[in-house]
Amino acid sequence: MAYAPQELLLILTLGGLAFLSFAPWVAAAVVILLVVVVASYRQLIKAYPSGGGDYEVAHKNLGEKAGLVVASALLVDYILTVAVSVASGVDNIISAFPELNPLRVEMAVGFIIVLAAINLRGVAESSKAFALPTYLFIGSVGVMIVTGLVRLALGDPAIAESSQYTVDHQSPTQIAFVLLLLRAFASGCSALTGVEAIANGVPAFRRPKVKNAQRTLVLMGGIAIVLFIGVVTLALTSQVHYAESACDLQGWAACATDPQLSVMAQIAAAVFGGNTVMFFVIQATTALVLLLAANTAFNGFPLLGSVLARDKYAPKSLSTRGDRLVYSNGVLALGFVAAVILIAYQANLTQLIQLYIIGVFVSFTLGQTGMVVHWTRMLREGCANPAQVYRSRLINATGAILTATVLVIVTITKFTHGAWLVFAIMPVLYLVMLRINRYYGKVERDIAVDNTTEFGSSGDHAIVLVGKMQKPTLKALDYAIAARHESLEAVHVSIDEDESLRLEQQWAEQEIGVPLRIIASPYRDISMPLIKYIKMHREEHGSEIVTVYTPQYIVGHWWESLLHNHKARRIRHKLLLCPGVTVALVPWLLDSTRALYNRPQRPLPGQTRRGEPVRVIQRKALPPAKLPSHK
Amino acid sequence: MAYAPQELLLILTLGGLAFLSFAPWVAAAVVILLVVVVASYRQLIKAYPSGGGDYEVAHKNLGEKAGLVVASALLVDYILTVAVSVASGVDNIISAFPELNPLRVEMAVGFIIVLAAINLRGVAESSKAFALPTYLFIGSVGVMIVTGLVRLALGDPAIAESSQYTVDHQSPTQIAFVLLLLRAFASGCSALTGVEAIANGVPAFRRPKVKNAQRTLVLMGGIAIVLFIGVVTLALTSQVHYAESACDLQGWAACATDPQLSVMAQIAAAVFGGNTVMFFVIQATTALVLLLAANTAFNGFPLLGSVLARDKYAPKSLSTRGDRLVYSNGVLALGFVAAVILIAYQANLTQLIQLYIIGVFVSFTLGQTGMVVHWTRMLREGCANPAQVYRSRLINATGAILTATVLVIVTITKFTHGAWLVFAIMPVLYLVMLRINRYYGKVERDIAVDNTTEFGSSGDHAIVLVGKMQKPTLKALDYAIAARHESLEAVHVSIDEDESLRLEQQWAEQEIGVPLRIIASPYRDISMPLIKYIKMHREEHGSEIVTVYTPQYIVGHWWESLLHNHKARRIRHKLLLCPGVTVALVPWLLDSTRALYNRPQRPLPGQTRRGEPVRVIQRKALPPAKLPSHK
Repeated sequence: MAYAPQELLLILTLGGLAFLSFAPWVAAAVVILLVVVVASYRQLIKAYPSGGGDYEVAHKNLGEKAGLVVASALLVDYILTVAVSVASGVDNIISAFPELNPLRVEMAVGFIIVLAAINLRGVAESSKAFALPTYLFIGSVGVMIVTGLVRLALGDPAIAESSQYTVDHQSPTQIAFVLLLLRAFASGCSALTGVEAIANGVPAFRRPKVKNAQRTLVLMGGIAIVLFIGVVTLALTSQVHYAESACDLQGWAACATDPQLSVMAQIAAAVFGGNTVMFFVIQATTALVLLLAANTAFNGFPLLGSVLARDKYAPKSLSTRGDRLVYSNGVLALGFVAAVILIAYQANLTQLIQLYIIGVFVSFTLGQTGMVVHWTRMLREGCANPAQVYRSRLINATGAILTATVLVIVTITKFTHGAWLVFAIMPVLYLVMLRINRYYGKVERDIAVDNTTEFGSSGDHAIVLVGKMQKPTLKALDYAIAARHESLEAVHVSIDEDESLRLEQQWAEQEIGVPLRIIASPYRDISMPLIKYIKMHREEHGSEIVTVYTPQYIVGHWWESLLHNHKARRIRHKLLLCPGVTVALVPWLLDSTRALYNRPQRPLPGQTRRGEPVRVIQRKALPPAKLPSHK
Repeated sequence: MAYAPQELLLILTLGGLAFLSFAPWVAAAVVILLVVVVASYRQLIKAYPSGGGDYEVAHKNLGEKAGLVVASALLVDYILTVAVSVASGVDNIISAFPELNPLRVEMAVGFIIVLAAINLRGVAESSKAFALPTYLFIGSVGVMIVTGLVRLALGDPAIAESSQYTVDHQSPTQIAFVLLLLRAFASGCSALTGVEAIANGVPAFRRPKVKNAQRTLVLMGGIAIVLFIGVVTLALTSQVHYAESACDLQGWAACATDPQLSVMAQIAAAVFGGNTVMFFVIQATTALVLLLAANTAFNGFPLLGSVLARDKYAPKSLSTRGDRLVYSNGVLALGFVAAVILIAYQANLTQLIQLYIIGVFVSFTLGQTGMVVHWTRMLREGCANPAQVYRSRLINATGAILTATVLVIVTITKFTHGAWLVFAIMPVLYLVMLRINRYYGKVERDIAVDNTTEFGSSGDHAIVLVGKMQKPTLKALDYAIAARHESLEAVHVSIDEDESLRLEQQWAEQEIGVPLRIIASPYRDISMPLIKYIKMHREEHGSEIVTVYTPQYIVGHWWESLLHNHKARRIRHKLLLCPGVTVALVPWLLDSTRALYNRPQRPLPGQTRRGEPVRVIQRKALPPAKLPSHK
């Protein structure tokens, strides 16, 4: 909403200022599209209220592959939503404070870090606070539009500063003319990008969820249309001239050093004056709303990631919730990729917007097509109210055809302006997700229990791995003794003759009853001699299970883990490749872990209210826990 | 060597072309310094043949803090050696093929990746191959010098293309004049940077190591002096004009687009002609020798890192050798930091060289000072040959005073040109190393066995954590049964009612004799209810040791680990914080691990020759391994 009019005008200006007279027609086309899409999504929300959005609809009705196409489109799109919104937000801040222009990229990356941090801490409780900037934005832009129109009616139209600059241009050929109009339309279509977010957010609405979500969708759509028309009208009547590159504006001396003010800023300056309170209010609320738009992607991306992980198309780690029930890995991944893109594109809105909305329209088109299939199946299966279903199908079919047309237009007009990158990345994402799915499927088949599954190990030998005579080693030894293994020995791999001798002495001094076996290692390597020894032991004593006890340091700060456990982890990893071996980690809590305990506990939602004790579900009486016999 | 003459001339040219007449005097000062430093290091090698170099000398003679200053200086310097050598190598390649200029940074980063990869694979065996480019370089540059001098003597001097360009300049004030001379001297001093590498490489020389290392040092010094004088002479007689920025050269039209050819390339072109075989031979061997110089840092940095790790000033992971006995983490760290610096400085040699050689002279100065202390102590303690020790001390004192003077000059002349960064980073490195040392010291005190150490746990309960009925879980169960714990139960944390019911059915179907206990988890969290259950169990049954068995997936490819084990690792980490718990990892080898076994074994050096079997050192007869009693 905040950038759609600007990009529309910018593209038209490429053909010369005379082209701006086509702006109302292009804007009208955008408005019609918006109406159709809103109507289509009202149907989708009703049919699929679970919040899966286009991905779910396409997956269920058009099959796995269409679902994955939508998923890859949406993933790309969420990333670009963050990049475009943040770039546009920074643009508006710079319009109010032009001296910040050299810090454009730094500010953009800074906002992404702030957004990621907020979302990592969890925002569910405070989402009401997010409504306020939206109301302020709608209110203040509304005031601006009304003021502007009143001044126009009174014969005192607001005139933008840039109205004095002209634009150099060649008269476009007929084909270029049509292409320009289509490109302007494609750029204006970025006004539609909020719709998907509402469809995905249905479960978060108050009951009746579907009704409320539909009402919100229509309300948002209506407001978007009013604001869009209002802003375009004011931009045209105040003669804002906005060019792709600042120095395309003829007559502007400072073009090389000063940034172009955003269209919103120019209108606000024209209507209220450049240093008035209202000017800064418009800029502040615009910037805030844009950062909020980025925030919707920070909600949507991790959620989609977790849905994909649940369906086994993405790494399971994306469905891991952190301490605060946030899908932290999704938040981090989104923040990282968006920051990289903003740096690569130097937070240049006009270039970024070329990549944008392709993903939106891919998912629009496939989502609506899926809905058509859905309604058709309902009709075939017989349903209560066929007339209504026919109507719904007609609406979604119109939506599908229109959005498909727009997709073709967007692709043609944007492909050579950078959008090819999106078309290069989407198939890669698609293939990666498919491969992940096949991989998980294969692993699941491999580990499924079947008739060939046979176990029945016997033999129980334990080894305590001893490096130096230190408390953690003695604790591991203590635990190993308590576990009462059939046989137990301490094993030391000698990489330094003197240290091994000292260890033997200390072992004797401490009067430890467990035998200490010392294995020579000529190449300062611990794991290989140990594994050879275990294999030798198993050859002598039959295929026994060998439990290797090793101390594991537990640290209190993340940086401490850079200083510990690396050698132990490497040894453990190699031991686990050895048949019959299980590795027992005996924790040793370093002093710094006190910090972990002193840290105030973060309550889970509802926990404080209920104070849930552990609840063992005992459906039938259990036999007393004792050593069982196993077939 | 390859860049010192160029940087010397560049700085002098800043004062105007007339200033080039001072070049012989500045070059003479550099040569004198080189002679003194070589003489000083001959002493150092004799006294400290272990290869610790300046760090060892400063640490032993001047104390921990001086040692750490040297260490931080050397770390910075190794990084800059890579950056400067690679940037200069790329510069020389671009001089031969100017069309590669736009790929400068990409090529530099590419070479770093290649160098890191080579060093990760291990290069010890092939270091003879590295001698060849050095001989070729010395030989071809020697031929160039002789040819150039002969042409000069025959009255047909080679004239460089850039001789036609003049340089615009203001006449410098007297102070600026002196500063310029000093700066030129400071830049020329980069000819000395190979000396430290030989001092560190002593253990790698053939016996008699000290003699051979000393001989190499003198030989290298001599060759360096000859080549340095030769190249400077040719550069002056062929009137090479080399400016800080290409467009400072008056009369060169293509300065904005074409790169300046390196001084070496200009001399070669003047002596042999620009498209002759010898021109390309000179450029190729120069580039190769520079990449070799970068390679010495790839040998030195990881070695110094491992020495610091051994002395507990750096993370222990720096002393971990990889499969091929390489300190892989050091190689990776060096490659990464050097690449970042090359990108940040856009592989600009003239800017990078400002940061360089400060570290060298810090370590030179402290190393020589340490040697003076060393000889003084020897005199005080009484030694066999006082006269010789007095002589040695005199040499090292001269070295210390001269290098300290140069350090002051370098600091003054380079500080404002970017060298302040080095002075900002060195104290940070110093403090980090000191803090790491104090941290390791504290941990070691904490885990040292003392009289208060008391153990004697009893009670032996085992839990098999069950998620789904899958082979890895059954394997864990099988191992747990084989370990014959006093009591054993399977525990399932229920986060999905239906799945838990299905598990219970399957458990009954499989007729598993171990009781399955199901714990409710209202918040989809596994670790908290489990920990609560374990605590409850320990309250009921006394402070027993609880062994929790969990399956651990072992993967064959690194990317698979992105798809596995995250949830398990989080649960394990929380369990390890719970008192009395030890976690037993039961490995499950995924099919892909076959790749690990099929991979040809990399033999350790000497292993193939000796085929060492496992050797258990049995100093005294061990009692039969049985369950011991512990106080």
